[in-house]
Amino acid sequence: MVTKAYGAHVADRPLESIDIERRAPGPHDVQIEIAYCGVCHSDLHTVRSEWGGTLYPCVPGHEIVGHVSAVGGEVTKFKVGDTVGVGCMVDSCQHCASCADGEEQYCENGLVGTYNGATPDAPGHTLGGYSQRIVVSDKFVLKITHPEEQLAAAAPLLCAGITTWSPLRHWKAGPGKKVGIVGIGGLGHMGVKLAHALGAHVVAFTTSDSKRADAHALGADEVVVSRNAEEMQAHANSFDFILNTVAASHDLDAFTALLKRDGTMTLVGVPEHAHPSPNVAALIFKRRAIAGSLIGGIAETQEMLDFCAEKGIVSDIEMIRIQQIDEAYDRMQKSDVKYRFVIDNATLAA
Amino acid sequence: MVTKAYGAHVADRPLESIDIERRAPGPHDVQIEIAYCGVCHSDLHTVRSEWGGTLYPCVPGHEIVGHVSAVGGEVTKFKVGDTVGVGCMVDSCQHCASCADGEEQYCENGLVGTYNGATPDAPGHTLGGYSQRIVVSDKFVLKITHPEEQLAAAAPLLCAGITTWSPLRHWKAGPGKKVGIVGIGGLGHMGVKLAHALGAHVVAFTTSDSKRADAHALGADEVVVSRNAEEMQAHANSFDFILNTVAASHDLDAFTALLKRDGTMTLVGVPEHAHPSPNVAALIFKRRAIAGSLIGGIAETQEMLDFCAEKGIVSDIEMIRIQQIDEAYDRMQKSDVKYRFVIDNATLAA
Repeated sequence: MVTKAYGAHVADRPLESIDIERRAPGPHDVQIEIAYCGVCHSDLHTVRSEWGGTLYPCVPGHEIVGHVSAVGGEVTKFKVGDTVGVGCMVDSCQHCASCADGEEQYCENGLVGTYNGATPDAPGHTLGGYSQRIVVSDKFVLKITHPEEQLAAAAPLLCAGITTWSPLRHWKAGPGKKVGIVGIGGLGHMGVKLAHALGAHVVAFTTSDSKRADAHALGADEVVVSRNAEEMQAHANSFDFILNTVAASHDLDAFTALLKRDGTMTLVGVPEHAHPSPNVAALIFKRRAIAGSLIGGIAETQEMLDFCAEKGIVSDIEMIRIQQIDEAYDRMQKSDVKYRFVIDNATLAA
Repeated sequence: MVTKAYGAHVADRPLESIDIERRAPGPHDVQIEIAYCGVCHSDLHTVRSEWGGTLYPCVPGHEIVGHVSAVGGEVTKFKVGDTVGVGCMVDSCQHCASCADGEEQYCENGLVGTYNGATPDAPGHTLGGYSQRIVVSDKFVLKITHPEEQLAAAAPLLCAGITTWSPLRHWKAGPGKKVGIVGIGGLGHMGVKLAHALGAHVVAFTTSDSKRADAHALGADEVVVSRNAEEMQAHANSFDFILNTVAASHDLDAFTALLKRDGTMTLVGVPEHAHPSPNVAALIFKRRAIAGSLIGGIAETQEMLDFCAEKGIVSDIEMIRIQQIDEAYDRMQKSDVKYRFVIDNATLAA
């Protein structure tokens, strides 16, 4: 089925309108009319091939929400008209240890990304959510129970939400725990909301004094300007867990020093240039750890979506028309967005 | 009480015989005639002030075994003639969260090291096990139930043993777990023995092909020469836990790549020059962690000693006279020892 999309044929040109093909739904497939798609930093890195390995044409987008327009004969969990979402993955091997554990994001044979992943469908790689519709195996489709008026703002839960939720849950953020969130952007603002909703005592770290009030409004119990050594020192040895959402190269030691004994700082962003090598003594003398975490599994993503719907949690978004995508990328790179751009996919038809 | 010891008055001179004072035992003290003392890299770094901050005269030694020669009136756990040990700590605050948890090594107010630690005793800092006797609070004295003929070889359990035991236990090395031990020296050879005795599948990593047979003899199920990329690759994504005992700056990524999802590599050595900054993507894409660990708590040290006595586990040692200490340091720096020097403290009287 011919589907209008927005994407790029080469790394160094603006995105443009292109027509793509979606497969006819197979027995286990769900066909989704995309209502909204969040804009993630990964979209920009991939479409510009900044990480290398981008296959063209490239259609980014992995924070997808919409409505089911067709289902295959074997699909029982979804029916036409259901409100659903698709995140960063559309497939995985389904038989390795990680898949068996419901951790498809760590699939030993490689997850299939929602864009730039391997597929037998034309053109041989997956094409993402900057498009009118998508066809996805039912195992990778999520139910969304947020009210319709919150649907656009729910889109970023599919990547920014689960990327922060999964480590918060894995490292047991909750009542009685002091949790730090480093960086108040697309990921970090969700981290603050989710950690707060999970009942943790939340401290937001920002480099910008101007974000203090905003961070409190998002749910932070305390806000620390990380450039202020005195403010940082006041929190030494006190955190159970720190979720560090900053991908830019920075001094990790400033934050590991804030972990209490047995505390962990988890990174969710890959820096373009390596962070300065962390201080090993700071790990040894408090049995601290530095870890990483990647999105989350499908069951865990559903758990997060249900939790958010129940608590009324969505992302803070700025809606754009697809024709504004390059401008949005430019602003995103300057952190000039509170806190996530979401595309109104109806504008693809314009 | 005047006590013969071996130590240094300055950083850049060989150790020499010196007389020190030991306090009369207080109500909670245990006075120990030292039979043997293991030689740790920390001894050398401290006596030469390579880490800075060394107080002189400096008497190193924190792998101490011997026999009780006097006890204070309130001491109930020990009596004259008991075989006992003292490790890296002789005191801690006893009231912080870490002390309350039996993790005195992470005392929030600072543990008191067996040498170069703060004490009201003359000369104002603690003096270690290169001496005829020592007086220690009963809380920091360990019972040793190894037979007398194993006593010298048990000495290194007090530092090398517990430094490897504690992380192996904390990260649950045991049956069904694949555990790597990086570096087959004083610490690493104990790590191999202990991980094997705990029932783990043990893989020893060495840079030296010549250590293959030795590592197997120590209990390794497999031995990998870490300079051999093909041998390393065969173990990719397979380890539950890696204990890295190498303090020299090296490429951590070569080992993190061998951890399976949710695996941890724990460092126990502080490098003089920082390791190359670890690859963050390798952490994120498998939710791996890099952690640190410091010796172990007193109860845990006793547990390790009891386990080792029951299993007949000791260190592989080379006995020296105290007069050979400088030569031993030189050889230790060249890794020319299998695997730990132990001082026969009777030679202090010579």
